[in-house]
Amino acid sequence: MSPGGDICVVNASLEGETVGLRARAGIIEEVGPGVTTAGGQGDVGETVIDAGGALLVPPLVNGHTHAAMTLFRGHGDDLPLMRWLQEAIWPVEAKLEAEDVYWGTRLACLEMIRTGTTKFWDMYWEPAAVARAVEDSGLRATVGPPMIDPSAASEVDARDRTLVEQLDQLAACGPRVTPAVSPHSIYTVSTENLEMAARLAAERELPLQIHLSETLPEVEDCLAKYGVRPAVYLDSIGLLNEQTVLAHGVWLDRDELDLIAERGATVVANPVANMKLAVGGVLPYPEARRAGVKLALGTDGAGSNNSLDLLADLKVFALTQRHAAADAEAIPVEEAWAIATGRRSDLVGDPDPLAADKPADFILLESDAYELALGDLTSNLVYTATGSVVMTTVVDGRVLMDGGRVEGADEVIAKARERATHLGLT
Amino acid sequence: MSPGGDICVVNASLEGETVGLRARAGIIEEVGPGVTTAGGQGDVGETVIDAGGALLVPPLVNGHTHAAMTLFRGHGDDLPLMRWLQEAIWPVEAKLEAEDVYWGTRLACLEMIRTGTTKFWDMYWEPAAVARAVEDSGLRATVGPPMIDPSAASEVDARDRTLVEQLDQLAACGPRVTPAVSPHSIYTVSTENLEMAARLAAERELPLQIHLSETLPEVEDCLAKYGVRPAVYLDSIGLLNEQTVLAHGVWLDRDELDLIAERGATVVANPVANMKLAVGGVLPYPEARRAGVKLALGTDGAGSNNSLDLLADLKVFALTQRHAAADAEAIPVEEAWAIATGRRSDLVGDPDPLAADKPADFILLESDAYELALGDLTSNLVYTATGSVVMTTVVDGRVLMDGGRVEGADEVIAKARERATHLGLT
Repeated sequence: MSPGGDICVVNASLEGETVGLRARAGIIEEVGPGVTTAGGQGDVGETVIDAGGALLVPPLVNGHTHAAMTLFRGHGDDLPLMRWLQEAIWPVEAKLEAEDVYWGTRLACLEMIRTGTTKFWDMYWEPAAVARAVEDSGLRATVGPPMIDPSAASEVDARDRTLVEQLDQLAACGPRVTPAVSPHSIYTVSTENLEMAARLAAERELPLQIHLSETLPEVEDCLAKYGVRPAVYLDSIGLLNEQTVLAHGVWLDRDELDLIAERGATVVANPVANMKLAVGGVLPYPEARRAGVKLALGTDGAGSNNSLDLLADLKVFALTQRHAAADAEAIPVEEAWAIATGRRSDLVGDPDPLAADKPADFILLESDAYELALGDLTSNLVYTATGSVVMTTVVDGRVLMDGGRVEGADEVIAKARERATHLGLT
Repeated sequence: MSPGGDICVVNASLEGETVGLRARAGIIEEVGPGVTTAGGQGDVGETVIDAGGALLVPPLVNGHTHAAMTLFRGHGDDLPLMRWLQEAIWPVEAKLEAEDVYWGTRLACLEMIRTGTTKFWDMYWEPAAVARAVEDSGLRATVGPPMIDPSAASEVDARDRTLVEQLDQLAACGPRVTPAVSPHSIYTVSTENLEMAARLAAERELPLQIHLSETLPEVEDCLAKYGVRPAVYLDSIGLLNEQTVLAHGVWLDRDELDLIAERGATVVANPVANMKLAVGGVLPYPEARRAGVKLALGTDGAGSNNSLDLLADLKVFALTQRHAAADAEAIPVEEAWAIATGRRSDLVGDPDPLAADKPADFILLESDAYELALGDLTSNLVYTATGSVVMTTVVDGRVLMDGGRVEGADEVIAKARERATHLGLT
């Protein structure tokens, strides 16, 4: 485990004030006016950034993605969900090697660094390769080997052994990687195996992520099979608690949202993927807010988005809520921005980032960009800007991008192209 | 009238081939493999661009906006439509001066140049200032002084005189400015004045643009007042023909779409503004396509968007269509891209740009951008890229942006900030 970096940013703009930020070993010591370098001139080894008036804001947190699927971007785009999976995605995934996953994830990390996301929640095959890509790229991620029921009973034992090994391996990674127990969904994992997942998460004190209530047939099947709606079913297995992340939540009803709020679980909205896959709805944000549900925002995989630019998705999130409710007051910009920066879930993100004793993860935005030049900053972040306004991305006190250019981007793109060719995608 | 520029682009990539493009006085002479500079080395005065493998594509065409409203970006964001107009927009518009409109439009032009839009359809006050901003920025625009019924009958004559003067003034501008007769809507302009608008457009052989069927109350009021739906009402006045542009069209029904197709009018979708103002729907694209309606894409004003990045809006357009139809096959990427580049309306755009004898308007995209590095280009343009992938914007054979930087951007932003302050917006 390498400790984080020592960094000092001066001349940044935070809520209208000129501030500095100083961090040691990846942890923020101080943020505010008058903050300067540790020794006044910068310690030996300390990185000093003169922000030149750039805007200091909390970084974005991507609450749900399948990063390596960036390799499949655009593949089978115009197909409906089941044909997309069966004809486009699964045949390619059958050929996937760890190196494909590694470079696909590196490409995703490049895109996230470029667009100001510093932490993401991932669920994908070859989790060791995902973790290695996360470590090499400098980002943070919660990495989850997907659990899907094997087709043959004889595979169960082998699968479980592999899963436990994978979680052990992830736990041994550096501090920027967190393992998560990741049953794929209630329609691909049996009750028995969901119970096993719950035990595994509890014993190891790990977060657990699952796709929930993404499509209407999922809800109907759950009702037919178990007599209750998906969130109630999960709760009956002991899978709904403060360590649970539910991706999608499109068809959750009032009672389910109340239950989820009571249990302290987090729901991650994925509006772009929901629209692209035409599932027919989006997370009912006004109801979720009323219930007091913890919320985050995700891009889902690039296969069904096709971008990982969370600032762009933030606009779509706010637009879909205004549209669905036919109410321009459906979602205040401050709430939308808080959700996208992980501040509405203490599991997915942090309610109070950019403060002393917190990780030195932050971004700097070009204050003279036309998107930010006029009007209210929060409104501009929600409705005007895309990730191209991000100039500097810092994680764990280390500069992953400065001046809008990510070091090593050319190699990542070249290698990702090679792997896409290997998979027959180009 | 200044003639357009002489330009030669070499080493560009077009549909997988390495091509060149040569233009004289703003008109394309040749595009294709082997095209090189006129004299082999570049004529005196000829601009030569080595594209270095950048992607040559048709530029975007913004079919409906109110460019100067970029000054109001984010103002009153979370208000519903009528309160937004009454409390946020109209009080500011009451203070507007020509210089505000000029710099607001310049800021909008800066954003459009940056994001690859070379032509836009505008409707706003102080049209002479709009036209001056268009000419100074180097873009093309159709400029329309809005017609709204005066509250007092005594104002009618004065208004009509002013309108005719404004259209004359616009007609005297350079070839990059086209005047348009622009009655605001069927609910703000009387039948008598709409008839006057139709005569004016016919006599002067000008295009005519109008907001139509944006909200459900507009349709209900039209039915109550005239006994027919909005498109049928317009047709009865002689306002539906090949020179007509209808903005929004959210609530058009099958019969109206058939009628519009038959008359050859163009409908401009404005999905982001429709969602932001929570009008409750979007243009029914699958029906419009079935009917054979000419289509274009618009951002609407930045006041209700809040961006003019048409590539970002293109994604929202495609997503909303898949979502509304609950059908992932609702809109093929090739069609979406054609609509955004003006190729599905011979009035708003051109069905066959980037060809000999056509205006030398084009953009070059960064082929190594992560958004475009893998997968199908058209899919990536629709679902992955935002305007930040545009590196070079050329209009009328003149380079308005190269290397992603627009010359003079700092001055435009500084002046726009001054004018926003003047209006009490900052």
